[in-house]
Formats: sequence, structure tokens, C-alpha cells
Amino acid sequence: MQDRDAEQPPVPPVTVIGLGLMGQALAGAFLRAGHPTTVWNRTAAKAEPLVAQGAKLADSAADAVVAGPLIVVCVSDYDAVHALLDPLGGVLEGRVLVNLTSGTSAQAGAATEWVARRGGTYLDGGIMASPASVGTADAVLAYSGPRAAFDAHSPALESLGTGMYLGADHRLSALHEVAVTSLMWGMLNAFFQGAALLGAAEVDASAYTPLAVRGIAAVTEWLPGYARQVDDGTYPGDDSTLDTHVAAMEHLVHESESLGVSAELPRYVKALADRAVADGHGGDSYAAMIEQFRKPSGTRP
Amino acid sequence: MQDRDAEQPPVPPVTVIGLGLMGQALAGAFLRAGHPTTVWNRTAAKAEPLVAQGAKLADSAADAVVAGPLIVVCVSDYDAVHALLDPLGGVLEGRVLVNLTSGTSAQAGAATEWVARRGGTYLDGGIMASPASVGTADAVLAYSGPRAAFDAHSPALESLGTGMYLGADHRLSALHEVAVTSLMWGMLNAFFQGAALLGAAEVDASAYTPLAVRGIAAVTEWLPGYARQVDDGTYPGDDSTLDTHVAAMEHLVHESESLGVSAELPRYVKALADRAVADGHGGDSYAAMIEQFRKPSGTRP
Repeated sequence: MQDRDAEQPPVPPVTVIGLGLMGQALAGAFLRAGHPTTVWNRTAAKAEPLVAQGAKLADSAADAVVAGPLIVVCVSDYDAVHALLDPLGGVLEGRVLVNLTSGTSAQAGAATEWVARRGGTYLDGGIMASPASVGTADAVLAYSGPRAAFDAHSPALESLGTGMYLGADHRLSALHEVAVTSLMWGMLNAFFQGAALLGAAEVDASAYTPLAVRGIAAVTEWLPGYARQVDDGTYPGDDSTLDTHVAAMEHLVHESESLGVSAELPRYVKALADRAVADGHGGDSYAAMIEQFRKPSGTRP
Repeated sequence: MQDRDAEQPPVPPVTVIGLGLMGQALAGAFLRAGHPTTVWNRTAAKAEPLVAQGAKLADSAADAVVAGPLIVVCVSDYDAVHALLDPLGGVLEGRVLVNLTSGTSAQAGAATEWVARRGGTYLDGGIMASPASVGTADAVLAYSGPRAAFDAHSPALESLGTGMYLGADHRLSALHEVAVTSLMWGMLNAFFQGAALLGAAEVDASAYTPLAVRGIAAVTEWLPGYARQVDDGTYPGDDSTLDTHVAAMEHLVHESESLGVSAELPRYVKALADRAVADGHGGDSYAAMIEQFRKPSGTRP
């Protein structure tokens, strides 16, 4: 029988740069998974709780980068990324930089080129989780960039949460991240609209939540079918038609007005659906709304 | 040992009026649960599949009502409800009418009084499910009205799906139904916004769906905490602040513009959050948005 320790692959060193709420959660997750973890932050004091857990605080960003083959960066924005990395020179050579800083796909593209010019490999990543869930399977992190770099570091990245590889196109992580956050705002705004409405009828938001959660679960079940309709470009209204939805939207507008809460979001939702009906989709399923969202809306006013 | 059949309570007769997609699903669920089921529809042909499954087709709405103690009505709107019931006279005496027709809380109130004047008891109900899931535990039906009437017929109503009793206030079912449908539209619109954005980057909606489903699950976990913040009226931004959300919303607007899809919903979402920041909530959690939704927005333009 072999020594069990001998069967385990060595746990590679990792570097985390940026120790805001999310960066601290990332470094903590690496430490709990047994990775020798080097950290760096512009304000060194933020590293103290991590150092107490065994992290090594580097003297400079360059020292942090050279501590291992995988560097995870999570700072406030891309300006901060460049302020950190621009002075570093050639230390990225042969290393993989995973940038979990939120930004646009164009910023991810520029960073890809910037890192490549310095001999490094860039993976862009998005964190679809709260800091509290980082390090658990519930946290989803999505990555785009070279497959080989993702595969090589996938075991280490799995310490942060469930990793999803989106593809080589560097834009994909940023685009998926904004798509998922858009879903978050859509859910939360609609939840608060409902909570405001029910609050006016003296129902607590906490009392409404269990039904809301059931409703969300039901709608979630429909998404694969609606996604197929979107991909096929046909929207059979077998279950429910846009005409039926618009009639129900009118109830939402009316109830909001009657109870004296904001009817602005309901009116906007109805106006969007009215346009799809005007385009001839009244007998189609709700998936026909995709065509409204695909229409360019011009530059901002 | 007793005969097993003798232990079972008798399965009471039920009536279903209105045999659209949803009414047919309701009657089918009652039949599968073993209820003697009488049906009626303005167009009798729609009853044929149900009659083949054992339903009794009544000759008139009045005959359908007198067939049992529980009458479930599911028609297109309240005008149809009244067209059906107004001519019936006293046949509702002592019976419970459960109206699953979508409508407003004011319409539910008027129907409550109308049924009471005829000696019947009115429960208003909302179906938070597609016809396909009716008759399974996944289908949620929410009821408001007299508790005793709900309790008496709860075993029969459970044949239709998971029943939730919301309270005696007759408005509650209609208000919860619009709140949950509002959540549905919020989710679906945001899902299609993301699908449009990713589609412009050549990602299929079906390829995006698994990540969207994970994102929805994560946000769902936050709702009880946000609901408590709403009920408490305090919005500690421990995890993420509105300022951070607004910065990410700017990314969504920018990506939508860059990829040539509609940026209208993203701009609207950001404008809503901008107002909350202008009101001093930049350092608060997203739950502070409740205050925007509580503001009356005047009558419709």
C-alpha cells in the first residue's frame, strides 16, 4: 500500500493581488484548500487576517507575481489593474494571470494583449457569487481565454468555487458576467416591486418570499425551453401567449396604481410587450420578446 | 385488519367551469385524483377529452354548480365570470366557489360580495404554474378568503398542486399573483436581454442557460436576507453596495451598445439605481431599491 500523501499531487503556490472583500474571500479559499498563498494589496493592513491564516504578504506586486505560476487579480476596476501591472516589466513571463476584476469585454481584450506582450497568458474571469460563498461549490466562477491555461490551473481555481470554462474568445467572461448580473437586477427589481405592492396591503416582504421563491423555481424550469425557441427563432405559444401576458401586465399596472406604489416598472414592462404584440407576436410565447432585446437602441441620449 | 378502502375518506364531487388550457388541466387533475368531476364550458366540444377520461358534462352552468359542494371557475377574465354566474340565481347557496380566473384585487372583492349575497362562499385563487405542471406538487396555487372554506376543501384543492393559504383578505391572492408574475417578467426580460447580448457574440441562448440557472439560484438564496432588510427598513451594504451595482450596470449598458443590441432595459435599470444613489443609498445594499418601488408614480400618462 502506497503512502497516501505520495498519491496527492503537490498543491501549487498561488498569488492573490487585491484584498477587498472579494479578494480576501479568494485568498481565504486558497488557504483553506492548502495552497501556499502569497498576497499583495495597495494597503498592506488588509492582508493581516490572511497572514494570520498563513498567507505570505509580499513586499511588492512584482514579488507577489514571481511567487508562483498562477496570479489571481481582483481589484476595483481595470484602471486599478493597469496601475498595478504596468510597472511590472517582464515578471509575467511564463505565468498565467487570471483577472477576476469586473470590466467590459473590450477591457478584457486589451488586457489579453497587454499580458501576451509581456510573455504571460491571460484568463478573464467573472465571479457569480457573493464573497461569503466563495470557496464553496455554490460559488460559480466563469473563465474565458486559452483552454490550455484554464486546464493547467483548473484544480487550483476549483478551490474558489465551481469553475465554468466559456471558451477561448476573451470577451466571453465579461459578457456572461453582465448577462448574469442583468438577470440579478431583473429579479431583484421585480421582487422589490412585488414587495412594495404587497407591503401596501400589509404583507411583509418576508411573508411574500416563500411564494416568490416557488415562482422563481417555476420560471427557471421554463428557461431551457424558451432558450430553444430563441435559438430556433420560433415561439409557439402553446402554454401562454403574449396577448395573455399583456392582459396580466395591465393588472399589475392597475394594482400598483390602486395601492399607491410605483407603477413605472410595470408600465415599462407592458410597453415592451405591447411593442412585441404590435410586431405581430401576440399569439407567440413570451420568448418572442427576444426580438425586442435584439433591436439596437441607438447611442445613449 | 380493516378493509383499506374503508379507511379512505370519500372523494367528494367537484365542478370545473371553463375549459381553456388551464381549465382542462384542472379538471384532468381532479379526475386523476379520483374526484367525480362535473365540467361545463360555453363551447361544449372542449369537454370531450375530459368526458373520455370520466368527467360528466353538465347541460348548463347551473347544473354544473349543483353537482357538488366545490366549484372551480377558470375563464378568460372577470367579465366571463359574471356572464356565467349572473344568471344562476340561488344555486350557489351553501357552496364554495373558488375563482382561479386572473384579475385584480378589486374584481376579487366585488366577486366576494356577489357570491356572499347569493349565500355562497368565495375563495379567490391564483395559479403560479403552467397547465402542464397542474396536478403535480410543482404547481403552486395560492388562495385567499375565509379560512374555514379553504380548510374544508383543502384536500380536494391539493389535487391541483401545492396549495398556499394567504389569508382572509380577499385581495391577497390577486396581489400575490401579480407580484409573482412581475417576478416572472423581470426574470424573462433580463434573461432575454442577456441572450440577445450573448447572441451578438455568437453564444446560443441554450449555451448560456446553465450559467443563467446557476445565477438565478444564487440570487434566490439572497432573497430572505433582502426581505428582512426591507421589513427592517435598514440596508447594510456588507456584501455589495448600490455604488458597486451602478458601476456594473454601466458595463451592461456599454456592452449592449457595443454589440448593437438594445440598451434600453439596461439604461432603465441603471436610471432606477441612479435615483436610489441620488437619494443617499450609494453605500447601502440593493435592498434599498425598495424605496424607489414604494414611491407613487402618479396616474398613467
